[in-house]
Amino acid sequence: MRRILSKPFGVMLVRILGIDPGTERTGYGVIEVSGQSLTCLDYGCIITDKGISLPEKLLSIHERATGVVAKWSPDIMAVEQVFFSHNARTAFQVGQARGVILLVAAAFGMELDELSPVEVKSAVVGYGNASKEQVKAMTRVILGLDRVPEPDDAADALACAIASSVKRTFKAHLERVEDRV
Amino acid sequence: MRRILSKPFGVMLVRILGIDPGTERTGYGVIEVSGQSLTCLDYGCIITDKGISLPEKLLSIHERATGVVAKWSPDIMAVEQVFFSHNARTAFQVGQARGVILLVAAAFGMELDELSPVEVKSAVVGYGNASKEQVKAMTRVILGLDRVPEPDDAADALACAIASSVKRTFKAHLERVEDRV
Repeated sequence: MRRILSKPFGVMLVRILGIDPGTERTGYGVIEVSGQSLTCLDYGCIITDKGISLPEKLLSIHERATGVVAKWSPDIMAVEQVFFSHNARTAFQVGQARGVILLVAAAFGMELDELSPVEVKSAVVGYGNASKEQVKAMTRVILGLDRVPEPDDAADALACAIASSVKRTFKAHLERVEDRV
Repeated sequence: MRRILSKPFGVMLVRILGIDPGTERTGYGVIEVSGQSLTCLDYGCIITDKGISLPEKLLSIHERATGVVAKWSPDIMAVEQVFFSHNARTAFQVGQARGVILLVAAAFGMELDELSPVEVKSAVVGYGNASKEQVKAMTRVILGLDRVPEPDDAADALACAIASSVKRTFKAHLERVEDRV
């Protein structure tokens, strides 16, 4: 599979797949990071049929997520950490879809990056208490899109991918600073 | 894939895979149902390495569960329903492993049978408040095993498969009675 490539002058080209898993709706967004510039390659939402069984829904999510990964060969999968202020039933439902998504990451040897909601909001908007609308608006600006990405699931997935790239850039910067000290 | 076969004199041969999923330990047990007789074909526990990442654990569970299904071609997957008296964190962890297991069921076109803990205990021991030890002892007796199946995860999985077969038999019996009325 494609690994992180070196471009001329040492600029790294990294592809990040942000993903927001759910048994009914799984948002995804693929971005390419080249130095400081971010490009949106693809985004969308895997919606499962209401009339099919849970195993069939999971199979559909697995097939379609595998299709996205096979098409874009992302290096990193970025997903939000799940917090448990929600009820256990919701956590269980999300868990089942998330298990299938993480399986795709492992099958393609992708690196997993788990981000807290605060990390995502801080990276995209600049502060950790930003509203959903602010996150969507800034996602559009950062990726230079003509319009705000829809639906929400896809926008969340793209925001997660952006946050992952910001974290990487920051980490790389810190490492350079440490090398100088 | 193998489908439910008719034996001479109309006795149905059905294979049931009971499974007790978890990210650290996934118990499984395969039984064959031929009329009133149950035979244990296989049981065991998929234990994931402590040192590997969650996606790698899920990949390992997926591969090994697929191996069991490919070997025995069960018609039905029997899993316990998860109740949410536990905390959300546990539900989420179990959910991730369960998603991967249900994916295997869908990929092989298996029928899914979800059983409540009370259904399992009632079917195996005769009353819904039975202890874990009673369930294990009766699992041994019902399947005619030389010793109590170990570890607990495998015994739970076998109990689940037995309960699924009891439910089927009872349902078939009810249908016959209804036909007569």
